[in-house]
Amino acid sequence: MKITCNDVADIALGGAFLACGGGGDVLVGRMVAERVLREHGNVDLIPLQEITDDATVIAVGGVGAPSIMNEKVSNGTEAITALRILEEYTGRKADALIAFEAGGFNSLVPVMIASQLGLPVLDADGMGRAFPEMQMETFSIYGVSATPLTLVGNAGHSIIMNMADASTAEKLIRQFTVLGGGGACFSAEHVMDGSTVKRVSVPHTISLSLRLGRCLRENHGNMKEFRQELDAILQTARYGRPNVLFEGKVVDVDRQVTGGYDVGIVTLQEFGAGENNMTMDIQNEFLTARLGTHVLATVPDLICMLDNDTVQPITQETLRYGQRVTVMGISAPEILRTEQALKVVGPKCFGIDMEYIPIEQRLGTVGLEFDSTGTELIPSPYRST
Amino acid sequence: MKITCNDVADIALGGAFLACGGGGDVLVGRMVAERVLREHGNVDLIPLQEITDDATVIAVGGVGAPSIMNEKVSNGTEAITALRILEEYTGRKADALIAFEAGGFNSLVPVMIASQLGLPVLDADGMGRAFPEMQMETFSIYGVSATPLTLVGNAGHSIIMNMADASTAEKLIRQFTVLGGGGACFSAEHVMDGSTVKRVSVPHTISLSLRLGRCLRENHGNMKEFRQELDAILQTARYGRPNVLFEGKVVDVDRQVTGGYDVGIVTLQEFGAGENNMTMDIQNEFLTARLGTHVLATVPDLICMLDNDTVQPITQETLRYGQRVTVMGISAPEILRTEQALKVVGPKCFGIDMEYIPIEQRLGTVGLEFDSTGTELIPSPYRST
Repeated sequence: MKITCNDVADIALGGAFLACGGGGDVLVGRMVAERVLREHGNVDLIPLQEITDDATVIAVGGVGAPSIMNEKVSNGTEAITALRILEEYTGRKADALIAFEAGGFNSLVPVMIASQLGLPVLDADGMGRAFPEMQMETFSIYGVSATPLTLVGNAGHSIIMNMADASTAEKLIRQFTVLGGGGACFSAEHVMDGSTVKRVSVPHTISLSLRLGRCLRENHGNMKEFRQELDAILQTARYGRPNVLFEGKVVDVDRQVTGGYDVGIVTLQEFGAGENNMTMDIQNEFLTARLGTHVLATVPDLICMLDNDTVQPITQETLRYGQRVTVMGISAPEILRTEQALKVVGPKCFGIDMEYIPIEQRLGTVGLEFDSTGTELIPSPYRST
Repeated sequence: MKITCNDVADIALGGAFLACGGGGDVLVGRMVAERVLREHGNVDLIPLQEITDDATVIAVGGVGAPSIMNEKVSNGTEAITALRILEEYTGRKADALIAFEAGGFNSLVPVMIASQLGLPVLDADGMGRAFPEMQMETFSIYGVSATPLTLVGNAGHSIIMNMADASTAEKLIRQFTVLGGGGACFSAEHVMDGSTVKRVSVPHTISLSLRLGRCLRENHGNMKEFRQELDAILQTARYGRPNVLFEGKVVDVDRQVTGGYDVGIVTLQEFGAGENNMTMDIQNEFLTARLGTHVLATVPDLICMLDNDTVQPITQETLRYGQRVTVMGISAPEILRTEQALKVVGPKCFGIDMEYIPIEQRLGTVGLEFDSTGTELIPSPYRST
């Protein structure tokens, strides 16, 4: 299938939903990508299984604090430079591009570059959501070296990295992001062949984003309809059912740009006279959702936030006091829940002292579960203590 | 002339004297370089003016906290790797190597590599002393781009940097040094042609180090003889006369490894009943020498420390309580005192809120000057205020 100018807004919206509050801004991604595709043409979207085994695939995207990325709007020129430097350095030309995460902006970076360079994009990505650190890409988790990797920032700053492990690379990436990019830059990374990329990617996520985005657009302002359609869409994908974890208003946003990330805590209060508060840890993305002292969900399960009035995804950098929101939790795809993956994307990897317990178990433990339509929290018959 | 195994110890000693407390350890530099030259042979030392204009010259050396470099003894294998990566990346092969600073270790890094690769070394360097940061090299000060630059750390960590300015490059170098090298690594940088290197280098510093080292060795334990010979040697070089700023014992060393540097303050107390204290700021090198509240000398003028008993240079990382020492101040070569240079190597560039005043003026201002032999501080007839 072709990605056209008309698909871009939906991919951005759906990517932002999957991105758990991260992945970049929908409006920024949409505006820039629409202009690029209008000028440079449509992009072939290739199903993951159809890439030839010996093709060279390279991941591209924006890195840094989303709050900064929104202030440094780019059409991906730096990403093209990063790709060119990496191609020259490795002597391998990209036959196709892939997103390293889902997001309003980052799902579209490979699309923008592909349009300008006449390359196809794979219908897949390296997270199936967004995470703040590079070693959290399934590419790295399942054994592909992240480096050689190139970063391009402002004013001609660029580096080529060859690091022994993705975690150390990630630390240096953040330093470059701050020093060379003022908080945000572009990277090209994870040079893979086709046979490898099939093994280590989360499939279908661009077409899924497109469908999610269409559903979000068509149900603008209609939460009930959206929830039902969302349930149907996710049942065809490798994610679990969507569970509403909380509805309330934003009463506190304690967040700062630290070390190239947006980091903080958001507090939500129940509507009406309810005294229940939800707190959510943020590191670019929503990492946890806690109802009082009860943990309802943690990474790698997806914690997504929607504006109650518009029923559109909210990225964490746009959180403001008084917003009326719905928080949803979705079981992560199995590729993010393996023992190997949880060593890298479990709560402890974000400095949060919690074990990973799948969201469907957590809800039972705190005495809640969802009704058969997945739309209402009801008391659980198997509450444990 | 040839640098032989027998010259190495003197170059290390003399380099350490010029290095103002930095530049790496004499014993480490000597031990490693002697073994390398014994195995791989002598090295041609070329006067700066004799390098051909179209030759390619590359600077190499160790970067990081000297205290860490002494714990990670290396024969320069990482520096050879750094050089090879840079050569491959730029497509230019080094015809000669140059030190980027003087030092017990860093004067010898190009010698060690040159011996292994069969290359000559230039009789010059990029500081004429040692400074803690790369933009302080005369190469950078006088317009040569520091990048592309390569760094090689531990465990296969390496990067190629292309940064818009040397100061930002330096900040990222330190981050790599910590993340990729545990506090110390090797770099290859400042790819220059022969005509450029003649314009931007401090000449004669390797042969000067050799003579200084010989003088230090021959006058082991004899301060008076050493001072007189030192005076004669410096008069033939582009440095000013050596002034004794203080004699006393180390009573406090407040120093830590911070951000890839050794940073701190050392306090010296006058011998006998004297109540005068000298304090000296450290960032890898000695940056200032203050007698009570009077500033006697600051960067870029050279502040060197000798052990009173052995009359051998003391590097800051070996400072210990109770050492009996002599502090000398030497006017820096003119190339470090130009308006252009002082913007980069003046006291404020180290976060020290002082104007640069040449040491010979400073001594007059605080009511001191040196006698005609340069060996005794005497009251100044032109004391101001």
